[in-house]
Amino acid sequence: MSQVKPSLPKGTRDFLPQQMYRRQFVMDTLRSVFESFGYQPVETPSIEKLSVLSGKYGDEGEQLIFKVLRRGTGLEDLLKDRDDFVVKEYGELVNEALRYDLTVPFSRVVAMHQSELVLPFKRYQMQPVWRADRPQRGRYREFYQCDIDSVGTSAMLADAETIAVVYHALVKLGFEKFVIRLNNRKILNGVLENAGIQGPKGDAALLTIDKLDKIGLSGVHNELVQRGFSESQAAKILSVIEMDGSAGGILQKVEQALNPSETLREGLAETREILSFLPSLQVPAEVVKVDLCLARGLGYYTGPIFESVVEEPKIGSITGGGRYDGLVGMFLGRDIPATGTSFGIERIIDVMTQLEMFPGEEGGTQVLVLIFDASTQTDSLAFTQELRNSGVRAESFLEVAKLKKQFSYADKKGIPFVVIIGPDEAAENKVTVRDMSSGQQVTHAHDNALEFFADRFVNSET
Amino acid sequence: MSQVKPSLPKGTRDFLPQQMYRRQFVMDTLRSVFESFGYQPVETPSIEKLSVLSGKYGDEGEQLIFKVLRRGTGLEDLLKDRDDFVVKEYGELVNEALRYDLTVPFSRVVAMHQSELVLPFKRYQMQPVWRADRPQRGRYREFYQCDIDSVGTSAMLADAETIAVVYHALVKLGFEKFVIRLNNRKILNGVLENAGIQGPKGDAALLTIDKLDKIGLSGVHNELVQRGFSESQAAKILSVIEMDGSAGGILQKVEQALNPSETLREGLAETREILSFLPSLQVPAEVVKVDLCLARGLGYYTGPIFESVVEEPKIGSITGGGRYDGLVGMFLGRDIPATGTSFGIERIIDVMTQLEMFPGEEGGTQVLVLIFDASTQTDSLAFTQELRNSGVRAESFLEVAKLKKQFSYADKKGIPFVVIIGPDEAAENKVTVRDMSSGQQVTHAHDNALEFFADRFVNSET
Repeated sequence: MSQVKPSLPKGTRDFLPQQMYRRQFVMDTLRSVFESFGYQPVETPSIEKLSVLSGKYGDEGEQLIFKVLRRGTGLEDLLKDRDDFVVKEYGELVNEALRYDLTVPFSRVVAMHQSELVLPFKRYQMQPVWRADRPQRGRYREFYQCDIDSVGTSAMLADAETIAVVYHALVKLGFEKFVIRLNNRKILNGVLENAGIQGPKGDAALLTIDKLDKIGLSGVHNELVQRGFSESQAAKILSVIEMDGSAGGILQKVEQALNPSETLREGLAETREILSFLPSLQVPAEVVKVDLCLARGLGYYTGPIFESVVEEPKIGSITGGGRYDGLVGMFLGRDIPATGTSFGIERIIDVMTQLEMFPGEEGGTQVLVLIFDASTQTDSLAFTQELRNSGVRAESFLEVAKLKKQFSYADKKGIPFVVIIGPDEAAENKVTVRDMSSGQQVTHAHDNALEFFADRFVNSET
Repeated sequence: MSQVKPSLPKGTRDFLPQQMYRRQFVMDTLRSVFESFGYQPVETPSIEKLSVLSGKYGDEGEQLIFKVLRRGTGLEDLLKDRDDFVVKEYGELVNEALRYDLTVPFSRVVAMHQSELVLPFKRYQMQPVWRADRPQRGRYREFYQCDIDSVGTSAMLADAETIAVVYHALVKLGFEKFVIRLNNRKILNGVLENAGIQGPKGDAALLTIDKLDKIGLSGVHNELVQRGFSESQAAKILSVIEMDGSAGGILQKVEQALNPSETLREGLAETREILSFLPSLQVPAEVVKVDLCLARGLGYYTGPIFESVVEEPKIGSITGGGRYDGLVGMFLGRDIPATGTSFGIERIIDVMTQLEMFPGEEGGTQVLVLIFDASTQTDSLAFTQELRNSGVRAESFLEVAKLKKQFSYADKKGIPFVVIIGPDEAAENKVTVRDMSSGQQVTHAHDNALEFFADRFVNSET
């Protein structure tokens, strides 16, 4: 075998067991919440046709698509006879690429499997995507995305339910101090119309408004003026986005302050409808904050928009989404109403690690059964298997080795309990249990020990 | 948005919810068995350096590695000025590739993370791999592999444990009629030595022996002679591989029939040691069959080899593995003992689908709460959320629509129960439950209905 000093491509990561347990904990928790709401799993291939991905991510995104070489193209071969290497062949050479996001592939699924899907269709998808980006601290070329979407209904209940999923998922993950910011593109458009701003200029204004959190009211004012809006336009916008108070209160203030256009009226009604559903879905009113400066980039949003922000400590948004009625039908040439949200799972995992939010027993062996000597080895193996049968994650040490080495293995792996079955224990059908954190050691009758571990690790879970 | 008629790259698949539930059921079941034995999860990036993968898969494999284009190489750009397109640049253009198997990346992990890993290290890994192959029926360019391996110990207990994992995993998946074939490369080498065959000629003989199941004893005899072995050599080999009987019986026959070399003696002792551990690990003796014609290809095996074969219906092997002490250390320049097995999960999923082995409640919504009318919508939402809180997978219909449409949704999605809360039910704090398979409809008090569903779907699981 060749002996290369191995390394990883830049911007990629190995996940060792301790990281994997955390990742699995987050993904399993999200999955269980999504499924409790009736969202169904979908997976798409890692490789898509380049024609499916092209033109969907803007000029900058296009640059970042990972392209895949076709089989046996062997650039070497082409180079040998370079006169044959024409652009036409290039077209066939690279016509596939790696998944760049989950929305475009899902839109393709909706188009290709129309007849099999029952609408409204609620799907979740958790898969890696790839970006041929220059890797930086915290930015990887391969990372997981996690999206949930409801397609095929314009009902605001779908948006409210999305918010409820976000709320219940974050609570189940252990987040405590967070708010869900809620706004509506139609309200924002109404605000802009009211200031006499329409079309592409509106996008510029939205980008500025979105920065309120970062640059403050005066910052927004200055940037609007710099972008060519009049003082009075800037003032009109500011007078709305600075509104504060309860969700209902803000909506009422907007209604009273502005000349309500059709668009604005729709935005207000949609927001009120969403708010009306949340109590039944057990989302506390104080968690949801109507925030008129939330714009969520330019994007493709057409109605409600929302994001969740962890407030303590201040770590910014960890989920974001909204309604985007014009996108999922991209391959069908017609609009299909859709709403959903992304969970920033890589960020969630990082934050939960940093804040030490993991319960600490996400995975890993719970009991190590030592091999005292060759004479009691089968007793040890048999007890280990009985533990497994009762639902405990248990392993026996694989070798007949010094006890010190075996204890050290348990210690290094963070295995909380060690079981010792020496000749005395074997003769009396007993086992000795050592609690690795306290060092306390107790000898139990065989069946009592099984019960002790089942109580400790299995029955307590339900 | 552009309107391409979308399609999938050849040899790739979308997984819709019904397929996803089956895949998740298989993967979750395997994961729980692996973890119950103390195997720990590892994941490696999809993209590896080409230098890490090169030279590991033979000439044919090399051709099938999916190569990835580096960012911004833009073959277009290079073509514009073709004189600059030299081989040196090509070297930098394509220096990454997609994961081809799980063993080479795992060997890289062992080399790169030596100091963090506690030996013996038992890991499982379940991730997609890619082959730039010509797709055929049942053969895909992207598919999951699933490997478990114990590295860092030569103890036969590690091999026995691997066999126990296979046994308990297959039982947990629902397989009934299967056997685990067990052999040892050292026994095979002993048999060949005894027939006066050594070195590369031995490989040719092994490939023929491995075909016994397909071509029968006379077929093996003829092929051996065709390959240039003498009649007497062929006869010596056949006299051993046709041996039948209990595991212990076969080993004794071999010992008596052959002139036991050091190699053969080791092979026999290793096999006996493995067999001695299996009863304690609750692997029934009748499941494990010593099968002297099992060779498992040429591969890299150095000791015990094993595979599991479903016998009824005859669908061939679904797991296979063995000890390979020379491979995992490939990046370290020294041998690291290792043993393990692959689970052919794509094949397992196909077979279980074909044999209708899935329990049928792997996933999906358990209760649909209809929206009778706008006046009772929040009652319906509240009841749905209470169901979720008690662990039931429940959804409410997203729109205020005709009941017929809502029933049809439940029907098409295979949701087993529907709940109706009309004005009468709401007034009396009751709910009506319809069993969709029997059509039976019963009105329960609110709390009794919650209890009914918890009993049906949650408490029964434990």
